[in-house]
Amino acid sequence: MNAEIIATGTELLLGNIVNTNSQYIAQELSLLGLGVYRITEVGDNPKRLKQALKESLSRSDIVFTTGGLGPTKDDLSKEIAVDVMQMESVLHEPTHTRLRMQFNGEEDRVQNNIKQAYFPPEAIVLNNEKGTAPGCILPSADKMIVLLPGPPHEMRAVFAQFVNWWEKNRADSTIRSRVLRLAGIGESDAAARLGDLLDRENPSLAPLAKPYEVTLRITGRGKTPEEVDTAIAALQQEVRAILSDYVYGADEDTLEGTIVDSLIEKDYTIATAESLTGGLLAATLVNVPGVSDALLAGFVTYSEEEKIRRLHVSRETIAQHTAVSPQVCEEMLDGLREISGADVCVVTTGYAGPEGNDVGLVYIGVMIGNEKAVIRHNFHGDRQQIRNRTTRNALAELWRRLR
Amino acid sequence: MNAEIIATGTELLLGNIVNTNSQYIAQELSLLGLGVYRITEVGDNPKRLKQALKESLSRSDIVFTTGGLGPTKDDLSKEIAVDVMQMESVLHEPTHTRLRMQFNGEEDRVQNNIKQAYFPPEAIVLNNEKGTAPGCILPSADKMIVLLPGPPHEMRAVFAQFVNWWEKNRADSTIRSRVLRLAGIGESDAAARLGDLLDRENPSLAPLAKPYEVTLRITGRGKTPEEVDTAIAALQQEVRAILSDYVYGADEDTLEGTIVDSLIEKDYTIATAESLTGGLLAATLVNVPGVSDALLAGFVTYSEEEKIRRLHVSRETIAQHTAVSPQVCEEMLDGLREISGADVCVVTTGYAGPEGNDVGLVYIGVMIGNEKAVIRHNFHGDRQQIRNRTTRNALAELWRRLR
Repeated sequence: MNAEIIATGTELLLGNIVNTNSQYIAQELSLLGLGVYRITEVGDNPKRLKQALKESLSRSDIVFTTGGLGPTKDDLSKEIAVDVMQMESVLHEPTHTRLRMQFNGEEDRVQNNIKQAYFPPEAIVLNNEKGTAPGCILPSADKMIVLLPGPPHEMRAVFAQFVNWWEKNRADSTIRSRVLRLAGIGESDAAARLGDLLDRENPSLAPLAKPYEVTLRITGRGKTPEEVDTAIAALQQEVRAILSDYVYGADEDTLEGTIVDSLIEKDYTIATAESLTGGLLAATLVNVPGVSDALLAGFVTYSEEEKIRRLHVSRETIAQHTAVSPQVCEEMLDGLREISGADVCVVTTGYAGPEGNDVGLVYIGVMIGNEKAVIRHNFHGDRQQIRNRTTRNALAELWRRLR
Repeated sequence: MNAEIIATGTELLLGNIVNTNSQYIAQELSLLGLGVYRITEVGDNPKRLKQALKESLSRSDIVFTTGGLGPTKDDLSKEIAVDVMQMESVLHEPTHTRLRMQFNGEEDRVQNNIKQAYFPPEAIVLNNEKGTAPGCILPSADKMIVLLPGPPHEMRAVFAQFVNWWEKNRADSTIRSRVLRLAGIGESDAAARLGDLLDRENPSLAPLAKPYEVTLRITGRGKTPEEVDTAIAALQQEVRAILSDYVYGADEDTLEGTIVDSLIEKDYTIATAESLTGGLLAATLVNVPGVSDALLAGFVTYSEEEKIRRLHVSRETIAQHTAVSPQVCEEMLDGLREISGADVCVVTTGYAGPEGNDVGLVYIGVMIGNEKAVIRHNFHGDRQQIRNRTTRNALAELWRRLR
């Protein structure tokens, strides 16, 4: 089965917004086993939308549209789709009732939005918990149009209703997925270690690269949720056995959240001293609401003088080895322990560029109790990428040692 | 004149990446006065790309494609476009020479990429300074295909070559633009103050909202660059007169860069002490390569204990007023000055949530010499948004006082 997506909105053609809706839908459809054949973006122009809809229906089985479901006369996606499907709309009482409730019975406002309560009798209405524009499925003998609203959070809420309907009525199987989150390893290295596992078909395993993070998506299909979950759990076990040093969590977990949980569980306090990252490491830990139970102190020691003054790094060590050296990194750890008294200390020093020699040379220091580690990296990229990679890798090194 | 954009790549249809290239091109074309009629995304499939190209050419005057210009046999955009235009490719010597230089004369690698040096004699080749895939313009009597590479930084470099060509050869007028960057004011407030200026037609003035930043784009058209520049400069003067407290720079300027320049010019040193921002403020200053001449020290004092221990905030003040109070903010400034000796001190304290009362209540402290200011804010948004807004506003307050 093939699908297409048509995103409507003049702001797309002006480049004012980026088409994240289509990306989201494409990603979710691939999970449902529906191949996307084409994505089209058209303006708020009835004639062109109609033309695009007809073309898409001639090529594909299901056409998703986003946008144009608002209450004004310029919002025409539903009207055009109903026309293309040769259907006719009538007032849909359950939606009318919902509108009344959403507007606390203010009849003026209900009337302003009344257009949103009209659907053909053939339509399957998809409620919108996040706004007033419901979506719908318009089915014919062999084709289907699915109308979704434009604002991304509304689109996602309505799309979830479509998925529910699809799984109950059309899917010949249940599909479930799980994302494993990795730290401290690159995508190609992870793929090499996984080898044949990446060729499995059900459940399948695929890397999904995100900025500064590698994730693996396990997707399984089968007759019942239990059967699929069992198969996913088994593959997950295999992956974790191979990549146990790198899988820090699953689904909505974050690396910093996992670290803070681990610190709190062990009753450890943490302190940071940052040169090139300049506060990014501490700021990432502070993403976690509960961090106050663990984060003792953070220092930005960007200059050599501040490393000497605040962290008691010796002037001689810097003169002999430069500020970007394993020796200075180790002295930063010692100094940070001394002034903070934290159980866990993490420090960074390196050259972020853009100018100078050795751009990308970075030392990360991690100290837990009396165990010290100094890790050398050579990162590529621009100043911001080198600083972000340093932050991410420092967290990965810390996580690995906290397990 | 109408344009269309076709983005190629199976990863787009799988939703693995978002189509930022099309947004960029659409935005730039609107600046050139070219209306975008439709945007299409197709997979790496020769038949479907050919079909999409033919459809687009039947509707529009210029069709831009992105992707498929790599050296492998799967990279087929150029071959298909040349076929659609009924042209024939031959070895393009200048590009061949460039390839040789890019690969330091390693003939094996040149041969691996030799496909990228083939173009029809009719083509206008657009050099790629960022990679090995040049773009090109394929012109016919009344239509035009413009082939651009897929990686965004390469696409932008090659698109810039297209713009140069367009302005020299096809534009019936010169179009130039300038972006003014604002800090410390919201978009609607800025728009209200500008009033009628936003209705001007040539040059035109339009707000462009970016995350945590408001910008204004001035766009002018005319016969000569000099004429347009004069008109843009005049409108810019009018805008600056109205928003002098908020316009910190233009085009590629950044707020942190402007601040660091100003600090260095005045021979000021700076220190930060951050509670809810947790290092974001210092890290933003460290975005600027030259910051080492100004940044003396940064402290993350997230807990009450660390505010007391490090910054010498009095325990009584916290007990009486809470840690999120103007009193504590002022004592943080005093303590930071004392321990850092910096000429300029900036501190933050506030509730980032998600739980608790008064989420979004923030105090920002700025001290220059002996001038102290404590500014109260009530930010909306989630934890990360509140922390980002605090950072941005602290920089805005600092910039305004440094002028």
